[in-house]
Amino acid sequence: MPRIFSYNEFKDGIDEVKTYADKHSPVITCDDIAVRDSKFKVNVRIGKTIAHPNKADHRFEYVQLWDLETLLAEARFSAITFGRSPVMVEVDFYVVPLVSMRLKALAYCNKHGVWESEEVFVKVIDSK
Amino acid sequence: MPRIFSYNEFKDGIDEVKTYADKHSPVITCDDIAVRDSKFKVNVRIGKTIAHPNKADHRFEYVQLWDLETLLAEARFSAITFGRSPVMVEVDFYVVPLVSMRLKALAYCNKHGVWESEEVFVKVIDSK
Amino acid sequence: MPRIFSYNEFKDGIDEVKTYADKHSPVITCDDIAVRDSKFKVNVRIGKTIAHPNKADHRFEYVQLWDLETLLAEARFSAITFGRSPVMVEVDFYVVPLVSMRLKALAYCNKHGVWESEEVFVKVIDSK
Amino acid sequence: MPRIFSYNEFKDGIDEVKTYADKHSPVITCDDIAVRDSKFKVNVRIGKTIAHPNKADHRFEYVQLWDLETLLAEARFSAITFGRSPVMVEVDFYVVPLVSMRLKALAYCNKHGVWESEEVFVKVIDSK
Repeated sequence: MPRIFSYNEFKDGIDEVKTYADKHSPVITCDDIAVRDSKFKVNVRIGKTIAHPNKADHRFEYVQLWDLETLLAEARFSAITFGRSPVMVEVDFYVVPLVSMRLKALAYCNKHGVWESEEVFVKVIDSK
Repeated sequence: MPRIFSYNEFKDGIDEVKTYADKHSPVITCDDIAVRDSKFKVNVRIGKTIAHPNKADHRFEYVQLWDLETLLAEARFSAITFGRSPVMVEVDFYVVPLVSMRLKALAYCNKHGVWESEEVFVKVIDSK
Repeated sequence: MPRIFSYNEFKDGIDEVKTYADKHSPVITCDDIAVRDSKFKVNVRIGKTIAHPNKADHRFEYVQLWDLETLLAEARFSAITFGRSPVMVEVDFYVVPLVSMRLKALAYCNKHGVWESEEVFVKVIDSK
Repeated sequence: MPRIFSYNEFKDGIDEVKTYADKHSPVITCDDIAVRDSKFKVNVRIGKTIAHPNKADHRFEYVQLWDLETLLAEARFSAITFGRSPVMVEVDFYVVPLVSMRLKALAYCNKHGVWESEEVFVKVIDSK
């Protein structure tokens, strides 16, 4: 492939395993309902509760936002972007949906591969 | 090069020229002061006051955020990301600054080339 | 996810299905053996035997080259890059391997999603 | 900006300066003449004669190929792509030209910024 990892594969592991999975897992935060043809904000943050290292040779290089098989947006970062301490990498995308979406975020760590978020369903309705 | 365009080159033109420049110009919005080693939000929006077409063959493909000669972050979009109507493409980046920054955004329109924002100075101070 | 498609899922279908899968499938071409610490060329071409449309709203946007879970390189194209006729999108990457590789290419069609190549094993040996 | 650097600014400097500029300068190699609507190969290599370091915090992150103000293609690399020794980063793009081109390559070093190649004119003719 590459194999795509997700938190749920690791959630029954020992604490060390759960910490590893936590800090690699992208999380989507947005409203449940969007208005058709209007700008809609989607926050993607990496790490459920724990910050990930941000060293040049161990960091998140990019985050993608998908609606099923369609790529909506991608953000790329440099090693310098997030300083030298562990960090929850974060970006707000804006999309203008025409139909309901099944969002998923993918994030690439240059040491531990591609991780996916849980899927988030956004219902798209007409404005009143 | 490519040549890099900016609003100021066109600001003394006729209305049609100014409209053209307005809708291609990225605008950075953020606080004047950031706290060292803390997450800092930077909004980049394309269009001073006017939305740009979002057709597959005439749209903004990517936005970059620079601190002088250092690339901090880049966001890429698909044709489908922003629907079918003119739109002000937008993204919120987060950075963790170590020193003061001179931010500039570059945006690439696949019909009219690369456009730069005005430079924004952000003073970085220590938290109290 | 997004789901990742591969030719083999479709190879027992009717001709129309096989044609569809053929023109979406990336193909890696390279030597079987590479010399450690030396530049090694890897050709990635999309389409086993059939060219894919290259329209702004139906085309391949990017190709990635992976070694298991490690991203080696990525190439992105504009709608204008490959003219207006169907085309086998193509790029030659160069890598400098330290250990043997299991290469796989992923390609993203903005209408039909992500497609993966077959895996190619490259043995890395020391120069004599 | 960012400011875009080129070899010619440094060519009258002392040897150390010329070496610095040499290893940062992208070089385009291709035929002078291309056939309209046919695939045309363009090699981009970074370094006129001297290899550049390839460390995670000092390396070339991406190369772009431009035809005047139009982006034709972009290749991105990871720190791991080119091993641990200095290297001339390299990629072969393929384009299908419709009209004559004025090619220029831009390359981004994460320590020393964006560097441009010399412009290469490619005449596009009809096949006989």
